[in-house]
Amino acid sequence: MNRRRTLKTELGVFETFAPALPAAYRATPFVLLANIAPALQHHVLDQTRRPKFVAADTMDLWLNIALPDLRRLLRRVDLFVLNDSESAQLTREDNVIAALPRLHRLGPRYVIIKLGSHGSILSGPRGLFLCPAYPLPRVADPTGAGDAFVGGLMGYLAAGGGGIEARLRRALIYGSVTASFCCEGPGPSRLTRITRADLERRVKALTQLTRF
Amino acid sequence: MNRRRTLKTELGVFETFAPALPAAYRATPFVLLANIAPALQHHVLDQTRRPKFVAADTMDLWLNIALPDLRRLLRRVDLFVLNDSESAQLTREDNVIAALPRLHRLGPRYVIIKLGSHGSILSGPRGLFLCPAYPLPRVADPTGAGDAFVGGLMGYLAAGGGGIEARLRRALIYGSVTASFCCEGPGPSRLTRITRADLERRVKALTQLTRF
Repeated sequence: MNRRRTLKTELGVFETFAPALPAAYRATPFVLLANIAPALQHHVLDQTRRPKFVAADTMDLWLNIALPDLRRLLRRVDLFVLNDSESAQLTREDNVIAALPRLHRLGPRYVIIKLGSHGSILSGPRGLFLCPAYPLPRVADPTGAGDAFVGGLMGYLAAGGGGIEARLRRALIYGSVTASFCCEGPGPSRLTRITRADLERRVKALTQLTRF
Repeated sequence: MNRRRTLKTELGVFETFAPALPAAYRATPFVLLANIAPALQHHVLDQTRRPKFVAADTMDLWLNIALPDLRRLLRRVDLFVLNDSESAQLTREDNVIAALPRLHRLGPRYVIIKLGSHGSILSGPRGLFLCPAYPLPRVADPTGAGDAFVGGLMGYLAAGGGGIEARLRRALIYGSVTASFCCEGPGPSRLTRITRADLERRVKALTQLTRF
């Protein structure tokens, strides 16, 4: 469940994709550069106007075939999200706690290392935050859970007021809960049927499950 | 770091060990049956007088060669502590959340599944508690970390007043922190040099690392 290996990546239409952002999107304050070729992530970021907060996700493929582009991207983002195996590949350090300073040196002020069913770790100016995963007795399909995590996280940040630093921990919790719903059905099917109240119930439950 | 495999077990003097509890120990209210042959755990438990709380640890060897003894023991203990691979072997269920009800059905009211550097999960009448591990940038030697965890946990329970249920979550936190010190030196060397203040500092730090 916690070790996924990419057997093959079919880029399909993304191979020659060069998205033009609609004018209304260019001033969005919160930009999520989801996992795609770093060159495309640059291309999208180039079209935005002074975003307040930029997050980037990636995958092992780009570490293998587009590392210079990715390294250049990391100097342009506020938050870098990757999983533990990608972190080990990029930093040559298996221990995620020891890898974090090395990831910050690549540029981003905030780094999140995802640990599958073991949650995630946020590192930033205020130190670390250990974010739990919502416990599931059955994982139907973890496909897209990483996207759901960072999507839920950015959605929470974008929807709220106040400073980012103060809301980042809860943003991870909302991301974690969003990812848990994603795992409960094939693809995004379960996610399409949840309500805000469903999210809030799991956030509350996660609070109860971790207080001591 | 999180997958340990037993290459060989040398029981040594334990092969023919039949400990006689000193009289002063027999009325101890908190009994920890650390990992050894289940027959010996029974033998020690038989010598105690109405303990308030009994915990048992185990390892894969006993699942392989002494399962009937172990199953009989589980009907006599309050808390069963095991790691995720032992849980999977015993229940034939890889998902730890799904395995927990099966472990309770073997007898113990409380079950803790240890997850190495990912912490541990407590299951009991009040539901689950997700206990974090103290983050370490360097693990010198994890040998004995499981014993340190359950030792710290039982020490906290035995030292405090009030009901067990109310103190169990914090007991796991103290166990987790005790285990973190164990990992920082070869064998128990680091553990022999810590003070109560060192423990309290890490408990406080773990609180800061997990609040949201």
